[in-house]
Amino acid sequence: MARKRRKRYHAPGTQPGTLAAHAEAGDAPVRITSFRYDANRYEERAVVPSEIPSLPSPEGEVLWLDVCGLSDPSVVQAIGDRFRIHSLALEDVLNVPQRPKVEWYGDHLLVVLSEIRYPDPPEQMTFMVTDGVVVSFQERPGDAFEPVRVRLRQGRGRIRSEGADYLLYSLCDSVLDAFFPTLERLGDEVEEMEDQVLASPEPETFLAIRRLKRELMTVRHAVWPARDAMNLLLIEEHALIRPATKVFFRDCYDHTIQLMDMVETFREMVSGLVDQYMSAVSNRMNEIMKVLTIISALFIPLGFLAGLYGMNFDRSASPHNMPELGWAYGYPAILLLMTIVAGGMLYFFRRKRWI
Amino acid sequence: MARKRRKRYHAPGTQPGTLAAHAEAGDAPVRITSFRYDANRYEERAVVPSEIPSLPSPEGEVLWLDVCGLSDPSVVQAIGDRFRIHSLALEDVLNVPQRPKVEWYGDHLLVVLSEIRYPDPPEQMTFMVTDGVVVSFQERPGDAFEPVRVRLRQGRGRIRSEGADYLLYSLCDSVLDAFFPTLERLGDEVEEMEDQVLASPEPETFLAIRRLKRELMTVRHAVWPARDAMNLLLIEEHALIRPATKVFFRDCYDHTIQLMDMVETFREMVSGLVDQYMSAVSNRMNEIMKVLTIISALFIPLGFLAGLYGMNFDRSASPHNMPELGWAYGYPAILLLMTIVAGGMLYFFRRKRWI
Amino acid sequence: MARKRRKRYHAPGTQPGTLAAHAEAGDAPVRITSFRYDANRYEERAVVPSEIPSLPSPEGEVLWLDVCGLSDPSVVQAIGDRFRIHSLALEDVLNVPQRPKVEWYGDHLLVVLSEIRYPDPPEQMTFMVTDGVVVSFQERPGDAFEPVRVRLRQGRGRIRSEGADYLLYSLCDSVLDAFFPTLERLGDEVEEMEDQVLASPEPETFLAIRRLKRELMTVRHAVWPARDAMNLLLIEEHALIRPATKVFFRDCYDHTIQLMDMVETFREMVSGLVDQYMSAVSNRMNEIMKVLTIISALFIPLGFLAGLYGMNFDRSASPHNMPELGWAYGYPAILLLMTIVAGGMLYFFRRKRWI
Amino acid sequence: MARKRRKRYHAPGTQPGTLAAHAEAGDAPVRITSFRYDANRYEERAVVPSEIPSLPSPEGEVLWLDVCGLSDPSVVQAIGDRFRIHSLALEDVLNVPQRPKVEWYGDHLLVVLSEIRYPDPPEQMTFMVTDGVVVSFQERPGDAFEPVRVRLRQGRGRIRSEGADYLLYSLCDSVLDAFFPTLERLGDEVEEMEDQVLASPEPETFLAIRRLKRELMTVRHAVWPARDAMNLLLIEEHALIRPATKVFFRDCYDHTIQLMDMVETFREMVSGLVDQYMSAVSNRMNEIMKVLTIISALFIPLGFLAGLYGMNFDRSASPHNMPELGWAYGYPAILLLMTIVAGGMLYFFRRKRWI
Amino acid sequence: MARKRRKRYHAPGTQPGTLAAHAEAGDAPVRITSFRYDANRYEERAVVPSEIPSLPSPEGEVLWLDVCGLSDPSVVQAIGDRFRIHSLALEDVLNVPQRPKVEWYGDHLLVVLSEIRYPDPPEQMTFMVTDGVVVSFQERPGDAFEPVRVRLRQGRGRIRSEGADYLLYSLCDSVLDAFFPTLERLGDEVEEMEDQVLASPEPETFLAIRRLKRELMTVRHAVWPARDAMNLLLIEEHALIRPATKVFFRDCYDHTIQLMDMVETFREMVSGLVDQYMSAVSNRMNEIMKVLTIISALFIPLGFLAGLYGMNFDRSASPHNMPELGWAYGYPAILLLMTIVAGGMLYFFRRKRWI
Repeated sequence: MARKRRKRYHAPGTQPGTLAAHAEAGDAPVRITSFRYDANRYEERAVVPSEIPSLPSPEGEVLWLDVCGLSDPSVVQAIGDRFRIHSLALEDVLNVPQRPKVEWYGDHLLVVLSEIRYPDPPEQMTFMVTDGVVVSFQERPGDAFEPVRVRLRQGRGRIRSEGADYLLYSLCDSVLDAFFPTLERLGDEVEEMEDQVLASPEPETFLAIRRLKRELMTVRHAVWPARDAMNLLLIEEHALIRPATKVFFRDCYDHTIQLMDMVETFREMVSGLVDQYMSAVSNRMNEIMKVLTIISALFIPLGFLAGLYGMNFDRSASPHNMPELGWAYGYPAILLLMTIVAGGMLYFFRRKRWI
Repeated sequence: MARKRRKRYHAPGTQPGTLAAHAEAGDAPVRITSFRYDANRYEERAVVPSEIPSLPSPEGEVLWLDVCGLSDPSVVQAIGDRFRIHSLALEDVLNVPQRPKVEWYGDHLLVVLSEIRYPDPPEQMTFMVTDGVVVSFQERPGDAFEPVRVRLRQGRGRIRSEGADYLLYSLCDSVLDAFFPTLERLGDEVEEMEDQVLASPEPETFLAIRRLKRELMTVRHAVWPARDAMNLLLIEEHALIRPATKVFFRDCYDHTIQLMDMVETFREMVSGLVDQYMSAVSNRMNEIMKVLTIISALFIPLGFLAGLYGMNFDRSASPHNMPELGWAYGYPAILLLMTIVAGGMLYFFRRKRWI
Repeated sequence: MARKRRKRYHAPGTQPGTLAAHAEAGDAPVRITSFRYDANRYEERAVVPSEIPSLPSPEGEVLWLDVCGLSDPSVVQAIGDRFRIHSLALEDVLNVPQRPKVEWYGDHLLVVLSEIRYPDPPEQMTFMVTDGVVVSFQERPGDAFEPVRVRLRQGRGRIRSEGADYLLYSLCDSVLDAFFPTLERLGDEVEEMEDQVLASPEPETFLAIRRLKRELMTVRHAVWPARDAMNLLLIEEHALIRPATKVFFRDCYDHTIQLMDMVETFREMVSGLVDQYMSAVSNRMNEIMKVLTIISALFIPLGFLAGLYGMNFDRSASPHNMPELGWAYGYPAILLLMTIVAGGMLYFFRRKRWI
Repeated sequence: MARKRRKRYHAPGTQPGTLAAHAEAGDAPVRITSFRYDANRYEERAVVPSEIPSLPSPEGEVLWLDVCGLSDPSVVQAIGDRFRIHSLALEDVLNVPQRPKVEWYGDHLLVVLSEIRYPDPPEQMTFMVTDGVVVSFQERPGDAFEPVRVRLRQGRGRIRSEGADYLLYSLCDSVLDAFFPTLERLGDEVEEMEDQVLASPEPETFLAIRRLKRELMTVRHAVWPARDAMNLLLIEEHALIRPATKVFFRDCYDHTIQLMDMVETFREMVSGLVDQYMSAVSNRMNEIMKVLTIISALFIPLGFLAGLYGMNFDRSASPHNMPELGWAYGYPAILLLMTIVAGGMLYFFRRKRWI
Repeated sequence: MARKRRKRYHAPGTQPGTLAAHAEAGDAPVRITSFRYDANRYEERAVVPSEIPSLPSPEGEVLWLDVCGLSDPSVVQAIGDRFRIHSLALEDVLNVPQRPKVEWYGDHLLVVLSEIRYPDPPEQMTFMVTDGVVVSFQERPGDAFEPVRVRLRQGRGRIRSEGADYLLYSLCDSVLDAFFPTLERLGDEVEEMEDQVLASPEPETFLAIRRLKRELMTVRHAVWPARDAMNLLLIEEHALIRPATKVFFRDCYDHTIQLMDMVETFREMVSGLVDQYMSAVSNRMNEIMKVLTIISALFIPLGFLAGLYGMNFDRSASPHNMPELGWAYGYPAILLLMTIVAGGMLYFFRRKRWI
């Protein structure tokens, strides 16, 4: 996942409803694909921007406009004009990244989700729904919608016989399902990190933990509001979302809760990792201190003894001056004394279970 | 409890309602047992999958289908078809583990619980309830239902004269009651750990604390949502759960609160253990430092004194050069000085209560 | 307060409503006292279990059955039969400890509280209320009800002219009031501990802090749910609790909030104690390190100087070899140098405010 | 602010409504002042206890009884009898300190606030309001009401033309406004402490931080419930508080929120101070360790070199024994070597930026 | 952002509704600009205080009075009199800083926001709205309103054809939008700080982290209540805010949530920085300890060996006294032994991965 945060705002004070291409939108041309279908009919074709104003209404069918690329604000404006979308909703399409949300504008509906598919950076998915029409906007090619397209083409399942609300559900579900593999990977990384903290608590490990924490935070910021958004779809009574479809949105909602559960579990594990790292560092410090203490405590007293008998008191001046130096067994005796002192120290450390 | 997390999702974008065997389901055959009873009659028999479509309706009796093993999606599909279960509910049976939850689908009801019976790994228990029918799904043989079966067979208590809602309650209650011994064991381990942290704050202790934390987290993830689920059964007005049975579900709800209380208490104790461990590590470090300091402070000054009189200044060159070496009592004097210095140090440490 | 947690559950899967004596109930006989009174009449007498089925209804009076001891489930069953109490409510009497709670069973009411009176272990107080009747169950002799009994006997205050709801209030109030002295004692201990942490941050202090924390947790687990229970009595509209009595239960509710305030204050203070202990340990470590550093830094350089002039270079081989040893004032000069070095060190430490 | 907690309870089991003087009430006589006014008339006079039963009703005017001192329960009882106050409300007057709260008793109202005016200890302010009457109780002379009295006397502002509810507002507002200077002072102390932590992280600093924490906790315990109390006055529909006065209580409510904001900000800053203190202690430890390490690392190797050439191997026994001692430039060479070693060490420390 | 907190209160006990210039208001004269417009007409002119009482009502147009500077309370009073504003609302204009809030006073509305535009200190923006009139008060010249003025002058967008509620929205939106660049800058600083903590965990870094924390706290205190305020505008049904305008206030509300998201993200990152700083300090301590230990452990044993053979036992007194000194290869042997000991130590440290 990309680390650099992007600017989230147009210049302060800009007139509301002003549409401007996003700074990072690039200038790849906007690709628009139209899917028009009902239980019996299916048409999929590319649409050029100039066609937009004259796109016919769905008339009992479902129309899905799949817009890929945000480099041309005039396309968004044209779609907004054609389907009478509120200017604030259009603004949200271009001012990426928005926080995931659902907003009702009288007769139409705006759904914003964030798609996080490892290893791509997060991408904003915006859906506008009016009667029989779903318009989806994505920032760049590559999305989680392919299985939906396949099901539409092949007419498998109930998707072709349901309305725009079921299509919206299918698209939202695809986006949310794509979180699971990403979270699995993060979970695997958390577990690897646990082993690594045990093996070698290096500063790099700490940095890796922090990176993991940040990625979890990114996912969390995408999932938390998605949960609220799905809930809003569930509880709002509106003709655009039929009761029979709500059971499917409840499933989406349930998935967001499962995702949150996973995110929170991993977050708790990561936060435990920080404790574990700190504890490992402390233990290592303890170990270093033990080595220092053992060696110092062994040799400093011995060194003192050696130094004692290295003194130069004049034995000839007085019989009290270091008579030990003249003893026949003075040297063996001092060696024995040193051995006893060292042995005593070692026994002491042993009893304290330091060695 | 098993440590490895299992995959919780079908491939992203899979059509909703697709039923596929779980990767870990194994291929043990699915065993189905049917219990059909009322106050006077009782029939218990094995059912083969091919019978499912023609299973008669309960007609005033209660029918409990006890399905053990998730290796064959077609069985789940057949049961779903027979009792007109929503495809999303069927999906939840196979995509284990689901989060514990209660979902109402018009005329039927889905209850998902997690059974944690030490030392088995967690197992998802799914219940589907329609008019007079309870279908329970479990992942593998071995469950907490045996006392319910015994009561059914012996016709003890009120279970035989009550309806499917009371059976659902009995099964949920069995699953929730099975948490208590597991939590008792975890509580015992927490207390053992407290003694262990005091006795020897080894890195292994820290790992054991972390393992305990993780197990408590697993239980918590099973119990928290179970509480919400039981509450939902309580507050939802629906013909499937009669008011007289709700007082029993309130008891279940109460048990989940007691379980949460225990889990939270243990979690708080475990989190106190981490503090205690860190404090024990600090204390140990303090002790090591004290030993080092005492020995260094004792012998380094003495070593200096010895070194001082080991200098080779030429006493013959000048009477100012180390005249002490020629004193009659020079050596005894220096030994006395050393004893005084050491004694002073020991007194200082004593006053600081280090020794 | 007793430290050992007791088992809180009957064997998993036991039939709901099964009454069994608690493992720790002992076999002291059950003592039952009956209080029957109205504004003019007052009767207090012992009741033997065999009388229970034929106990007359209160008929405008108030009947308080005070049951002490849980060793005989048949007594509980008999009382339940006589006053038509729900089997789940009876179960809660025996399965101690229950979480404090209030449960409405149609025409009767169950109130569970926990009594913590220092230095006794916690004791469950269960109240069952039906029209004109209060049955109280306690685990063992010794309770907070004595002042209520005295007021009943002497006919003081309004208690004799009020109904069963006021009696219930008086009993609950007695139980809750008994928390205050216990909390006062804990508060005193917290303050003592603060002084102790300052005086001597020994590991034993840390253990005492943990014990205090645990006792506060026990009180908290008794008070939190009691608050919810009192609130439930306040908000539930039911003939058993008359509006005029609710103002008294509001007072109880207020007391639980005051208790929670005290508990949370003490908890915050105790958690500050842990910080303070850790800080004291760190400071002690700092002090130890300072002593080590000062002594090492003083004597290691001096020791080097002494060692330098203890070298045995052959002065006769060359005039460059340690000519200092032959100087007339070599020894005084080196002593002066050593004094200067030591003085400089001491000045450095002084400036750093270590000594 | 006084540090000693006072007992907050009457003896457990005391009959509800029993009035007893508070242990700390002292025996200064109770002073009662009566203010009786409307837009045109104003009377202020001392009232003796024996007058209370015959105090006339306000009759369209407003009557404020300002009671100072709680040493005589019979005065409280007399006031309660005169204005038909509920016995539980009277109890709350004497059992100081109560938690700030608002309680409705049918036709009268109890408001309890805590006044914290630096440097006085906290004082409970109790207000009882019935139709046209406000009775205020305070523990001892000295309060925040003086500006209200002045406004009453001078007839400034709207106070004389408004009712008892506006008087209640004015008194509550005075009590709440008195918190601001106290909080300012605490805020100043927090900032001073920040500088002090930087300058010298002594154990005394830590104690001062803890004292500050405790004072903030005291204020918090006074303000949090005051917020709820003010809110209760706002939302309760009752004839005693007219809608036009509610806008003023909303202002009080707003002040409590501002106070909470300040308290929480200071708490967060104080909790940051603990971190900062701990970090300063760590840094100081690091510095001590650095000094120790630099000096040890400099002189221990040099000391070894000196020791090496202090060995007494018999150069006459063999030409291999310490021939360096006989070299013409042996001593200068060893001094050079030592300088190089020391220089290398210093360079190493420099590169590590320790010096 | 300015660090010094300002006094937030008038003297305790001041009569409610007293208007006094803020202590920091300075004495720059108050500048008032009047904007009067509808879709067709536009008039912008300076207004002198004496004109205020005779300002005509908007009559279908919109009137925006832009008041800059709070040095003259009489101006605020005059405006309040002219538009019949509640005295408490007027007080909030002058007692800066108020907490951001929305307050309904019957037929008029008070909106308080805090404008934080880097590098200026926070500034209170107060809006009063009555029918067709918006009065804005700011503390000093320089604001975020310029784009609104430009749009008004040029008649661009819908602003000229909408009412006072849309103007209010435009002004609020300008204030809220101005937070984004400030937050961006804080976000950049957080990221810089992360690199800095890695590079050099100096005490100054810690101070910089704390400063960042405090700035985030300031922004948080401005944004949190702004969110509640915007929400209150959304949910209140009042003629002053038309439903069609609410969709725009929802956008404002959405921005406050985005701002909160950013603030909370940065706060979490900053709090992670403290951990990281502490960990870096620990690591540095570990490194220091390692250097000390390695050098001590290398040279202290060698020093002992050297000292051993510096002893002066009298070889002539006995053949047992230090015969090694007379060996032909004694010196080379001891050098070899020292090399072996040092090599062993180095191997040991290598294996522990300390070097």
